[in-house]
Amino acid sequence: MNILVLNSGSSSLKYRLFAAETEEVLAQGLVERIGIAGGLGKINHQGQDKEKFEAEKEITNHQQALRMVLELLIDPQYGVIKDLSEIKGVGHRVLHGGEVFKESVLVADDTLEQLESLKELGPLHMPANIMGIRACQEIMPGVPQVAVFDTAFHQTMPRKAFLYALPYEMYEEHRVRRYGFHGTSHRYVSARVGQVLGRSLDGLKMITAHLGNGSSLAAIKDGKVIDTSMGLTPLEGLVMGTRSGDLDPAIVPFIGSKLNLTPEEADSYLNKKSGFLGMTGYSDMRDIQRERAAGNQRAQEAYELFIYRITKYIGSYYAALKGLDVLVFTAGIGENDWLTRQDICRELEFLGVKMDYAKNKDLRGQDAILSLPESKVTVALIPTNEELMIVRDTLALIG
Amino acid sequence: MNILVLNSGSSSLKYRLFAAETEEVLAQGLVERIGIAGGLGKINHQGQDKEKFEAEKEITNHQQALRMVLELLIDPQYGVIKDLSEIKGVGHRVLHGGEVFKESVLVADDTLEQLESLKELGPLHMPANIMGIRACQEIMPGVPQVAVFDTAFHQTMPRKAFLYALPYEMYEEHRVRRYGFHGTSHRYVSARVGQVLGRSLDGLKMITAHLGNGSSLAAIKDGKVIDTSMGLTPLEGLVMGTRSGDLDPAIVPFIGSKLNLTPEEADSYLNKKSGFLGMTGYSDMRDIQRERAAGNQRAQEAYELFIYRITKYIGSYYAALKGLDVLVFTAGIGENDWLTRQDICRELEFLGVKMDYAKNKDLRGQDAILSLPESKVTVALIPTNEELMIVRDTLALIG
Repeated sequence: MNILVLNSGSSSLKYRLFAAETEEVLAQGLVERIGIAGGLGKINHQGQDKEKFEAEKEITNHQQALRMVLELLIDPQYGVIKDLSEIKGVGHRVLHGGEVFKESVLVADDTLEQLESLKELGPLHMPANIMGIRACQEIMPGVPQVAVFDTAFHQTMPRKAFLYALPYEMYEEHRVRRYGFHGTSHRYVSARVGQVLGRSLDGLKMITAHLGNGSSLAAIKDGKVIDTSMGLTPLEGLVMGTRSGDLDPAIVPFIGSKLNLTPEEADSYLNKKSGFLGMTGYSDMRDIQRERAAGNQRAQEAYELFIYRITKYIGSYYAALKGLDVLVFTAGIGENDWLTRQDICRELEFLGVKMDYAKNKDLRGQDAILSLPESKVTVALIPTNEELMIVRDTLALIG
Repeated sequence: MNILVLNSGSSSLKYRLFAAETEEVLAQGLVERIGIAGGLGKINHQGQDKEKFEAEKEITNHQQALRMVLELLIDPQYGVIKDLSEIKGVGHRVLHGGEVFKESVLVADDTLEQLESLKELGPLHMPANIMGIRACQEIMPGVPQVAVFDTAFHQTMPRKAFLYALPYEMYEEHRVRRYGFHGTSHRYVSARVGQVLGRSLDGLKMITAHLGNGSSLAAIKDGKVIDTSMGLTPLEGLVMGTRSGDLDPAIVPFIGSKLNLTPEEADSYLNKKSGFLGMTGYSDMRDIQRERAAGNQRAQEAYELFIYRITKYIGSYYAALKGLDVLVFTAGIGENDWLTRQDICRELEFLGVKMDYAKNKDLRGQDAILSLPESKVTVALIPTNEELMIVRDTLALIG
């Protein structure tokens, strides 16, 4: 039994085919530049033990892109299955579940309507996510679809953690509140670290640090999120590749007036031109580390800001949790950049964090305990796996 | 020898006359509705051991308001001095010193020019602050003027605490960074608590909580600020009477689009219609407490948000300071609302804070230690006195 996992962006379609029983990845790929006027689309596909497939051609819409993917999956040369009937379900990554979706759902008649109503909370991603589901319904009628939300795991936050101090109608009428993102990742690594430690999540106070191109922290108690750093959108919180993270909100109109920006342009300025990129000209942590090593002062400063803000967030969640048992690092930076992990843990020594610095050094991409046995806080590295979580949810829901 | 302290708002002039030697307040008052077209101005004056004076009349500008104040100070019936020559100096509260003013200064030829260059960082307050200084120069030529800045005490913050993750030119060209406010108050209470405890500030890790209609926290190490919650403007940070405090920055363009606001209107929405007022219809903590007691759910929720955000900030500064020795409460709410102090300290018990809850109850407006001797953190109540600080700075600078 196989499960197809889809992540539809505004002009892209990422996919992964899993064997449900073994949780093995049978094939994966990416279709890019879908519907880009005057340019060719691009597809990269890789089937297990098969030759790679690459092509450029006109790709008008997500439906066409999905057809190409399905043809590749059953292709004698590049494919990994004989017939599409071997795909028993499709799991879709969906950005925003609002307050409607507190967990993954089987897509039913009214689901798409509910997703449409959430479009304005994720204007860049939601239309694409919906297109992906519609394309599957048309091309693979009868195959159950499951929607897995980036926001759902955070829906256990108490009101004091998700409300903003705005006129109340902003929440009631316009649904302005903290939702949080990367929920599937925080859910995966928080459950996984329990397995690795052989401990129940009950009674456990945990902070999960998803540090990648986008970064967020979650404070988790008894396996449930009580606070998280991203907000109404993925802009709030930590310093990120191209996102500012936290700001004096008055800076937004200040910049808007200075640079004469529309609200949409201001939003784009903070989401795409800020963060590491705005401070240094580089958005990728690997570039930041290389530049720091070469003595680039701006890169050093941006890195210090990044570490300091994470340290402060950990302090604030320490206060929210009233203690801390486990700190988990995951995602691109968290899994691969030992310096980031080291420099955060150095700042936390006053809390009783004792990292095994030798073990941490150069370690990447594998489950590992990074703290010494006497550390008051267990520090762990857990590679995230959102797709696997989507497979498991899909399997559970299609019965 | 007497010192006059002035606080000039856009349509108001607050004043206090001090006897320098005794630090006694000889007279004080407020001129309101200055330059309001089609309406009368209003003056309230109170001299020590003298009858109160109240009047309504047309008041065109700050110069005229200052003339009225000076006449009242030497008035046989309402005044407290015989001649204006008894005023040896004037201390002005000035909102924004940018990076130019790291401490109070004697107003020299180039000072007003420098203040003019800072106008855009405080467009509501700076023009009035400058008007107040100009009015004194014209009416009291030869009397030395001193400018005391709300931002100055925070100028010791390291770069990782004051930079935002924005394109670098926003800092270099447009001076966008964290400045912090209420600096004179944080300076006063941090010095005062050292006296009360009989301890040097060297080696001391302290958080000062200025909680009033506007609220801010400062993290202070060795008597120097290392971080503070307000930012480029006084909007950032805690939940306040009418200000939102921290928000996902993307909410600003979201609201701007929804309500079709200009940048100036968005700024005003967040500064004047949000916070407690936006959540409950009440901006004053006394109303919030009364409404909570009466079972008003919104007031309860706003209060919980207020306390929770303070708790998280204290946690983050605990991490920035790497420990905490002293927590000081001050300003309107901090001095007068024992419930707020109690509810914050309850949240901090896991840090080893042990409040003397019986002593704290109903206590207001006096220097007091509120923690038990065995508490790991000393909790103090220190009434703030920004005017006294301005007097002392003025005296020191006029020699």
